Amino acid sequence: MGINITNFLSSKSKNKKMIEFQDLDHIDGVSISTVSANLYKDPRDDLVMFYFRDGANFASIYTQSKIISENIKWNIRQKVKKISSLIVNTRNANCFTGIQGYKSMEKIAQLISEKLTEKQKEDEDHPKKIKSKEVIFGCTGTIGEVFPEEKILNKISELVDKIKYTQNKYIWMKAALGIMTTDTQPKMAMEECLIGSSKIKIFGIAKGSGMIQPNMATTLGYIFTDADISNDLLKKLLKKNIFNTFNAITCDGDTSTNDMVSLFSTGKIKHPKINNINDEKLKEFDIALNKVLLNLAKRIVSDGEGASKIITVKVCNCKNENEAKKIAFSISNSPLVKTAIAGEDPNWGRIIMAIGKAGVPIDIDKLSIDFGNLNIIHNGTMNINYNETEVAEYMKSHDIAINVNINKGSKDFTAYTMDLTKKYIEINSDYRS
Amino acid sequence: MGINITNFLSSKSKNKKMIEFQDLDHIDGVSISTVSANLYKDPRDDLVMFYFRDGANFASIYTQSKIISENIKWNIRQKVKKISSLIVNTRNANCFTGIQGYKSMEKIAQLISEKLTEKQKEDEDHPKKIKSKEVIFGCTGTIGEVFPEEKILNKISELVDKIKYTQNKYIWMKAALGIMTTDTQPKMAMEECLIGSSKIKIFGIAKGSGMIQPNMATTLGYIFTDADISNDLLKKLLKKNIFNTFNAITCDGDTSTNDMVSLFSTGKIKHPKINNINDEKLKEFDIALNKVLLNLAKRIVSDGEGASKIITVKVCNCKNENEAKKIAFSISNSPLVKTAIAGEDPNWGRIIMAIGKAGVPIDIDKLSIDFGNLNIIHNGTMNINYNETEVAEYMKSHDIAINVNINKGSKDFTAYTMDLTKKYIEINSDYRS
Repeated sequence: MGINITNFLSSKSKNKKMIEFQDLDHIDGVSISTVSANLYKDPRDDLVMFYFRDGANFASIYTQSKIISENIKWNIRQKVKKISSLIVNTRNANCFTGIQGYKSMEKIAQLISEKLTEKQKEDEDHPKKIKSKEVIFGCTGTIGEVFPEEKILNKISELVDKIKYTQNKYIWMKAALGIMTTDTQPKMAMEECLIGSSKIKIFGIAKGSGMIQPNMATTLGYIFTDADISNDLLKKLLKKNIFNTFNAITCDGDTSTNDMVSLFSTGKIKHPKINNINDEKLKEFDIALNKVLLNLAKRIVSDGEGASKIITVKVCNCKNENEAKKIAFSISNSPLVKTAIAGEDPNWGRIIMAIGKAGVPIDIDKLSIDFGNLNIIHNGTMNINYNETEVAEYMKSHDIAINVNINKGSKDFTAYTMDLTKKYIEINSDYRS
Repeated sequence: MGINITNFLSSKSKNKKMIEFQDLDHIDGVSISTVSANLYKDPRDDLVMFYFRDGANFASIYTQSKIISENIKWNIRQKVKKISSLIVNTRNANCFTGIQGYKSMEKIAQLISEKLTEKQKEDEDHPKKIKSKEVIFGCTGTIGEVFPEEKILNKISELVDKIKYTQNKYIWMKAALGIMTTDTQPKMAMEECLIGSSKIKIFGIAKGSGMIQPNMATTLGYIFTDADISNDLLKKLLKKNIFNTFNAITCDGDTSTNDMVSLFSTGKIKHPKINNINDEKLKEFDIALNKVLLNLAKRIVSDGEGASKIITVKVCNCKNENEAKKIAFSISNSPLVKTAIAGEDPNWGRIIMAIGKAGVPIDIDKLSIDFGNLNIIHNGTMNINYNETEVAEYMKSHDIAINVNINKGSKDFTAYTMDLTKKYIEINSDYRS
């Protein structure tokens, strides 16, 4: 199984960006199918179905925007214990589409439940009736355009027909490709861990490369495990691990109306029962889940619109985590910092500016700033060995690490972002055409 | 006197950007001189002296950044009733320059006070001794570089020698040019008004085209009047009128360590005494001051780094002004909104996104959005007459007006910004070279 990943992800060298993928194979209880519903003008897959033959426990975290898409409204209203299907379309966000957009969700969920019920009858020993409320949706794309209900309805039969009960790396790749919008790379990650003595898989895919200022959730992220974990525990695990992964990345400070990260558990692997979030047996799973989420989150940043460099901003020794996060995001969201880095300019004055504007009281005499291993500012004054040529050389790296030490406490936060390039403007001034 | 200004400033037509300047002439009690201290590699003026022969009452509002420049520290510490001189240099922000940067202020203020005292002896009937604490500083440029104390000290004699007691439009233009950094246009504005039956002038100059997210003050703005107004009243007037002018503009959401807006009153025109901020006699002055500040603020936005269009975002009928401001800035600071406008794309979905992420509770059914006079969204649904071709045509205008009606109260806020273009990236990724 290939587990080489980008330099950024492994942080090993300073060479050029090079994405390698982990090979996701089969995860018991999850089926995937993809089609083109012709939502784009090209024949790419744009509609992806995840089918949980025996249902899945699940938890989701949604956008904190005050305006949310119709599919998220739908998802929130379905109070079921197990989910049968997640269906994701691109090109249209189904946001600001009003009652019509919501009704489309109803109709599509209805048709999916009928078709899946038929499939259960044909394939299974113990067929069960699938209800429309067991179907949830992810939508991403342009806001405010009429939702392409017909195009999607027309493809449901094909999606269901294509379902196979054993998955391989190609179908995961197709799923990751099928949920992309302006992404240039599909995003997949996996980890294995033990619960008791049972080997557990955690697979994840994600999309997103703009509108990425996370507030709880960001973009689309779907995580699947064959462990058997309750809805309540899934929610707690997701919330806990989103904080320093999907919620630690920013591309442009914008937040989508459609952000959604979900965690599905098929329960196909038998293992000792987990009773609560502090259960020792959950420890490895917790760590592995964080790794999958962080891996996906970094892939999103690394594919940030127009990104030529990826930037890790670590703010250390603050009074509390919230202050560390404020400063880290103030730096990560500053267009002036991000353009300087695009220009490979060691303009640390802009880091100072961004620290200052974060609104957190700073003791300048204690402030230290490093670029990578190069110390620039030590206790509020420039390092006597500061060598601009050396720092300028460092700025040519693909992975830029900015370390800020506030020296006022013991709490850290690390944010991940990318530089701001002309390419970002190009992509975003011409998105819909 | 030329009072034609840009289309944006007059909001009369949709034609291309065209800056015209008001002619500032003489304002009694203010002298200006400018030199090149060779702070840049070219021979442009980069050091500007304002000299108040008989002193001036004054008030300043400074950056809210938690890291402030050494000159602002100096200014804050000088507790005097009248100011004798304001000196402004570009190219170096004197920020993060430590004790050395502060000592430079001391030395330069000392030399200025000596030279001005000599000049007073030569020129005046009643010479007076000028103290170094009567000198304040504006600095703008790169953060963290050693302050060019020697270069500036060497030019003080020349600056003082050049002082003339009558000013004209050319010297105001030179002053406005001399304080520029990445600005492409000098920024000047003027108004006249009455206090009682006395004609009063208010002249202003400003600089700034990046790092412009105002928090109280932004960039450099210097306003001069020949009225006789106390320091306390100047402060109240400035604070009140900054709110919907300099604090209503944003270019990139960044805030400088050096922001400074000052109001100087020479008291050369005799008029009835003003006792408090609510004095009826102050009404015209108050309005005129707001006009000068707004005129300058709009000029800053209109010259925003890389701006090809200027955008007025009016958010109406909110529960309170703070909510209106939050939404207006959320739209104005959104890179996705600003790149869409650069691309002349009527992508109103991004306006929806930006409204949503502002965090203010919204009643979608009451929301209306207009681009210029074209209604897009009415009471939460798309206007049945919406014609994308027509709106796309409107997006070609140089001045874009976005009007958002929240319909939940009676409070408005208008923010001013520009589009986000490749040129912005170009300027900022290559600022120091």
